[in-house]
Amino acid sequence: MLEASIDLMRKSGLSGAGINEIVRASGAPKGSVYHFFPAGKQQIATEALDAYAERVQAFIDAALAGGASPAAKVLALFEAFARRAEAARFERSCAVGTVSLDLDSEVAGLREVLARALDAWIAQVAQHFGGDARRARSYAGLVITAIEGAYVRSRAEASGRAFREAGDWLALLAEREFGRG
Amino acid sequence: MLEASIDLMRKSGLSGAGINEIVRASGAPKGSVYHFFPAGKQQIATEALDAYAERVQAFIDAALAGGASPAAKVLALFEAFARRAEAARFERSCAVGTVSLDLDSEVAGLREVLARALDAWIAQVAQHFGGDARRARSYAGLVITAIEGAYVRSRAEASGRAFREAGDWLALLAEREFGRG
Repeated sequence: MLEASIDLMRKSGLSGAGINEIVRASGAPKGSVYHFFPAGKQQIATEALDAYAERVQAFIDAALAGGASPAAKVLALFEAFARRAEAARFERSCAVGTVSLDLDSEVAGLREVLARALDAWIAQVAQHFGGDARRARSYAGLVITAIEGAYVRSRAEASGRAFREAGDWLALLAEREFGRG
Repeated sequence: MLEASIDLMRKSGLSGAGINEIVRASGAPKGSVYHFFPAGKQQIATEALDAYAERVQAFIDAALAGGASPAAKVLALFEAFARRAEAARFERSCAVGTVSLDLDSEVAGLREVLARALDAWIAQVAQHFGGDARRARSYAGLVITAIEGAYVRSRAEASGRAFREAGDWLALLAEREFGRG
């Protein structure tokens, strides 16, 4: 059910990931939802987002590790996300992005789950860049901002171009800020 | 009804902007929706997004015009968006972003409306920067990517920080690429 929930959230956020949709997509009997997730939708969403965030953190780490210099790391990261968006035919994006743009007062508790995921990713990216820790963290924040924005554009444009474009510019910045590694 | 539709889309995308929600928020009688928009939801969404896109384009133009140098233009633009997000208490973001992350095959026709809006904004931003036209357009693409991504973060973090952080970095890039104006 967590997998079904993650997939539905990546497609259209919280609105598309109701209990009925999760039950349908997972093939599990409806009663089992309340057995495993007695607190219902917000509980499933929280656990699904936590699991998703951990997985994306590993994906980010692996992609950055593939680059030999700060600029190469950034290019590798954005190329990995471009391919990820292309593989999903631009019909799936980041669950944290989709749910963030679906937040309302009914699910206000999810806001912190989303903020925590973003924070963890930013910390993960920052670890790959040396120099002043505050600057590395701020730069890492820009990287995550650009990934979330490129996902928006990739779905509207049905193209991975926004990722590669952002990667090229952010690689220039990385070289300027963190040197040639 | 267009205003109600724009506001609902900025809050949670297409899923929150159904005919019933639009009728409720606008106070118009339900029959009038089909009178003015015989093709229903997709037609309202298209007209609302077109009107919204034009308004945002004017907002972008005014903000960029306030800066005396390339870097100052970029700082002014991101500051304007940060204030816009703050004024909406992080409960509203960009309708193009929210709807992009809500796209599915049922409303595939909207994809081009969204892509057109992004393209118009990118062209508008590019006009404010000199030098090589291809570079200016690519940089403008990064600016729009960062705005969309900062909206995602602003809603999750309940903060305008992501806008200002992106503005600072992109101003550095603007100075490097387009000089001191």
